[in-house]
Amino acid sequence: MKVSQLLGMRFKEKPAGCESANHVLMIRGGYIKQVASGVFSLYPPMRRVTRKIENIIREEMDRIDGQEVLFPVVMPATLWQESGRYDSIGSEMVRFTDRNGAKNVLGMTHEEASVQLTRDVAKSYQNYPFMIYQIQTKFRDEPRCRGGLIRVREFTMKDAYSFHTSQEDLEQYYQRCLEAYHRIFARVGVPEVVAVKSDSGMMGGSVSHEFMLLTGIGEDTIVLCDECGYRANMEAAECIVSNETVEERPLEKVATPGVKTIDDLCQFAHITPLQTAKAVVYQRNEDDAYVIAFVRGDLEVNETKLRNYLGYEIHPALDINPESGICPGSIGPLGLPEGVTVVFDRSLKGCNMLYCGANEDGYHFGGMSMDRDLPGVELVDIAKAFQGGVCPVCGKPSLRISRGVEVGNIFQLGTKYTKSMNMQYLDEKGELQYPIMGCYGIGVGRLAASVCEAYHDDYGPLWPMSIAPWQVQVCALNPNKGDVQEKGDALYAQLQDAGVEVLYDDRTVGAGFMFSDADLLGCPLRLVVSPKTCSRGVVEFTSRDKTIKLDLPFGENNDFSAVVSAVKEEIAKRLAALNG
Amino acid sequence: MKVSQLLGMRFKEKPAGCESANHVLMIRGGYIKQVASGVFSLYPPMRRVTRKIENIIREEMDRIDGQEVLFPVVMPATLWQESGRYDSIGSEMVRFTDRNGAKNVLGMTHEEASVQLTRDVAKSYQNYPFMIYQIQTKFRDEPRCRGGLIRVREFTMKDAYSFHTSQEDLEQYYQRCLEAYHRIFARVGVPEVVAVKSDSGMMGGSVSHEFMLLTGIGEDTIVLCDECGYRANMEAAECIVSNETVEERPLEKVATPGVKTIDDLCQFAHITPLQTAKAVVYQRNEDDAYVIAFVRGDLEVNETKLRNYLGYEIHPALDINPESGICPGSIGPLGLPEGVTVVFDRSLKGCNMLYCGANEDGYHFGGMSMDRDLPGVELVDIAKAFQGGVCPVCGKPSLRISRGVEVGNIFQLGTKYTKSMNMQYLDEKGELQYPIMGCYGIGVGRLAASVCEAYHDDYGPLWPMSIAPWQVQVCALNPNKGDVQEKGDALYAQLQDAGVEVLYDDRTVGAGFMFSDADLLGCPLRLVVSPKTCSRGVVEFTSRDKTIKLDLPFGENNDFSAVVSAVKEEIAKRLAALNG
Repeated sequence: MKVSQLLGMRFKEKPAGCESANHVLMIRGGYIKQVASGVFSLYPPMRRVTRKIENIIREEMDRIDGQEVLFPVVMPATLWQESGRYDSIGSEMVRFTDRNGAKNVLGMTHEEASVQLTRDVAKSYQNYPFMIYQIQTKFRDEPRCRGGLIRVREFTMKDAYSFHTSQEDLEQYYQRCLEAYHRIFARVGVPEVVAVKSDSGMMGGSVSHEFMLLTGIGEDTIVLCDECGYRANMEAAECIVSNETVEERPLEKVATPGVKTIDDLCQFAHITPLQTAKAVVYQRNEDDAYVIAFVRGDLEVNETKLRNYLGYEIHPALDINPESGICPGSIGPLGLPEGVTVVFDRSLKGCNMLYCGANEDGYHFGGMSMDRDLPGVELVDIAKAFQGGVCPVCGKPSLRISRGVEVGNIFQLGTKYTKSMNMQYLDEKGELQYPIMGCYGIGVGRLAASVCEAYHDDYGPLWPMSIAPWQVQVCALNPNKGDVQEKGDALYAQLQDAGVEVLYDDRTVGAGFMFSDADLLGCPLRLVVSPKTCSRGVVEFTSRDKTIKLDLPFGENNDFSAVVSAVKEEIAKRLAALNG
Repeated sequence: MKVSQLLGMRFKEKPAGCESANHVLMIRGGYIKQVASGVFSLYPPMRRVTRKIENIIREEMDRIDGQEVLFPVVMPATLWQESGRYDSIGSEMVRFTDRNGAKNVLGMTHEEASVQLTRDVAKSYQNYPFMIYQIQTKFRDEPRCRGGLIRVREFTMKDAYSFHTSQEDLEQYYQRCLEAYHRIFARVGVPEVVAVKSDSGMMGGSVSHEFMLLTGIGEDTIVLCDECGYRANMEAAECIVSNETVEERPLEKVATPGVKTIDDLCQFAHITPLQTAKAVVYQRNEDDAYVIAFVRGDLEVNETKLRNYLGYEIHPALDINPESGICPGSIGPLGLPEGVTVVFDRSLKGCNMLYCGANEDGYHFGGMSMDRDLPGVELVDIAKAFQGGVCPVCGKPSLRISRGVEVGNIFQLGTKYTKSMNMQYLDEKGELQYPIMGCYGIGVGRLAASVCEAYHDDYGPLWPMSIAPWQVQVCALNPNKGDVQEKGDALYAQLQDAGVEVLYDDRTVGAGFMFSDADLLGCPLRLVVSPKTCSRGVVEFTSRDKTIKLDLPFGENNDFSAVVSAVKEEIAKRLAALNG
């Protein structure tokens, strides 16, 4: 491919509205074009990157006995009504009525389709286990799109579904898939992706993992223990705290004029947040009924944990109705109005010298004791784990909090879909059973963007050899001078004949312009032909990551075979390193 | 791949609701699964076929300097409003409103997206020409789906868009693309696909071709001349007739009780349909105003030609309003009510002894002369070409009418989209110009189904080597007997090691069952290992097309190298033949 013919434009200026490095570089480098919020077209270099990622995923899915299929983007509502998700999923699922009046959805995941495809043809235990996968466009009407291809509405995804006759078999396969995922991320160039335990969310099922690339731009929060290797996302991480029990004092009501926040209270009473009970107010989505969560003042409520405990959807209460009897700034567990659901976090266990609101404007209680004043209340884990907190596995106070981008996920689904959609098989005894499912996703575009986020400098991406749009870029500087163009053309042709993926810049532009374009296109290797190198009978060989800088001599009659060999060797070395 | 693990079920019974052979075999062979009307999932064998077709298309598109991109499935209505097609396309385009209240469409073609992707980055004549293509899911809300993957609502399509600075450049590229298409169809196994001139329909533009596979199940009608090679689809084929002028007679009004049709009239007056003027009544979609087309009684009106002449949408008039003054059964060109649009076909030219309706119930005119009674009326080409008609190119009466399936199309679009969407570039003189576009489509699934339609027998598809799901099927008959399984396993392993795509049936099922499954899976080559062949030290080598049937000996210690060589040679020979 010649740069002069390559569709797309590259430029230096930081485009407006881009926060993350990958988004900036994907726009500046001519990789993506926004069509609508969260909807992008891909220019040729990006399509080359995503195709390479798709092929790596395909190879690894085939290696664990996956069979590629294709499910439709448009599905009838009836299919999603079978599983119950037509109603349970909110406005992130696009619904439309077709010309015949039938209701349809745009696929955001394909559990239903995978059961529909297999339930009539996998009726005997002998058909199990099997795994099917597809690489297909999906649409999720995300309210907040950001970070270029990191969070979008339309995306290409590899989604896989496995079917088993026992939980053990699923667990074995789940482990194989987890290993395949690690191979995929390693081959794509981000071996540092970690698997973390996660909350299963709308997918149902119990055990699940997210694969996280740790990076500051990530919108997921991950809890890690460097001591024992424990990893979980914030939603799944247990929060462990212990409180020293001190000598009790009687409950006293204190006038606290102007005290509204935990900070105010600490300053007023000369205490630390650990000696307070903090109230956080939510409302049930269905009827706006109030839910008040109490945690130790230094901690935060994890909404997902709270939601899972309650079993219904909630949202933070923005305005509290004055007639509700709830007194913002002075909310406490004693004397709350009736009808309010109250949840206490485990962090309050054993506390007996707490300050908390008195449910009366300008007043707080001091000396509150959980055991004495709230005997028998249930304490549940609804707080966020925190930096320096206790690891739930090794027990050391070594938790670290990090940001991450989720580049893949795997779920043990159980029989949620096979039961609701009545998929059964005959077991060895001739009895009907429901197969047990797993599902496994990777977002292709998000993975490409994540690699760019992880490997770039100010000048552009540093694509790993396995997914680079081209392996080598040839730059012919001043092609009009001497035999530069002739040499460049010959080198380009010989590299192509040797099966190397070459991008050839033969434009008559300045060196600075040409190199900044090359940096943005991010090919891992670069060969420069210029009047200077030609006069010395060499080609300058460098790498985008600056680990290589040497002159490679060429022979008589435009014989670049030594150059081609050196390049091929370096490509092979880099690919081998990625393939592990 | 082992058949025992392959997802899908094969069966003998003809499934209900399938008319065409490909549809029957795609269902019976476990290739496709209907999800909704015109919406299918693909089982693994079909996905393998479509992937191979996609790769062939990709190679040929790259060979004519195509650059692969990706456009979104979901596009904002605003983009389609720019081109005017948001309003001009009817209910076959799916429209929906997203959670933010924005209107969107599902892509059924991507001219708008291709202009949006390129208009900001192709601003100089130096950027031209270029061609971009994608292979992506599309949705078209077809009212009538049929023939399995032949006419569907959701489909995978390769669509390409080229941009040029002159009509000559477009025409040259158009020709290159036409040749690439012929290579694609030849490589896929249907070299008999013909390019026919076509009507451009909703795409706009002037010159266009459809690529037709001639087959009885096709829903398109093609006009061919075996003398000179002229080919056109019915909408684009000129209809040429000549009439002998005979001695005139005066116009006479004849009582024709009960005469309603051309047949009635011929019987009544002892004439042939050539001596009649037939009226066909249409209505304008917009306001139901009447349009009456007159053709010579032996011919048919071509609605598309009529529509193109009128410049607006029409539909056949089902009920004629009694107050309209139009008199069904006796409609003629003389004395029609005012306000009716009348169009005369060229086939009436020179006729002077015509019978036609008298616009009065029970009466017709005889002896009507076009020149005398309707002097100066415009005669236009709105009739369908017919079997045995005159070829518009060579002039011989050698036209043949055939049915065909459209497997691809190419259009010279001109500046319809670049003008409406304001895409401009600076030419060599520094003046702003609109680029000239071409577009080029191939439906992947329809092509797969068409190959099956063209090459099958009662027992299953005969896949060409280039797109067969697997190249070879190994059948181990009675694997429990003697060393059949050991031999089969060894042969399977050695073929795989040699890079051959093998499907291995190692199930303990009867020979009839195994062979009928193999016929349905349609692998071009087959190797049978059985107690009988093992005892003779051979493997039976046959081909699905019955041109090969021979025994290949194997060596000591399960050495199948001679068998593997023979198979590889046959695969290479067949691929070479397809690649031309």
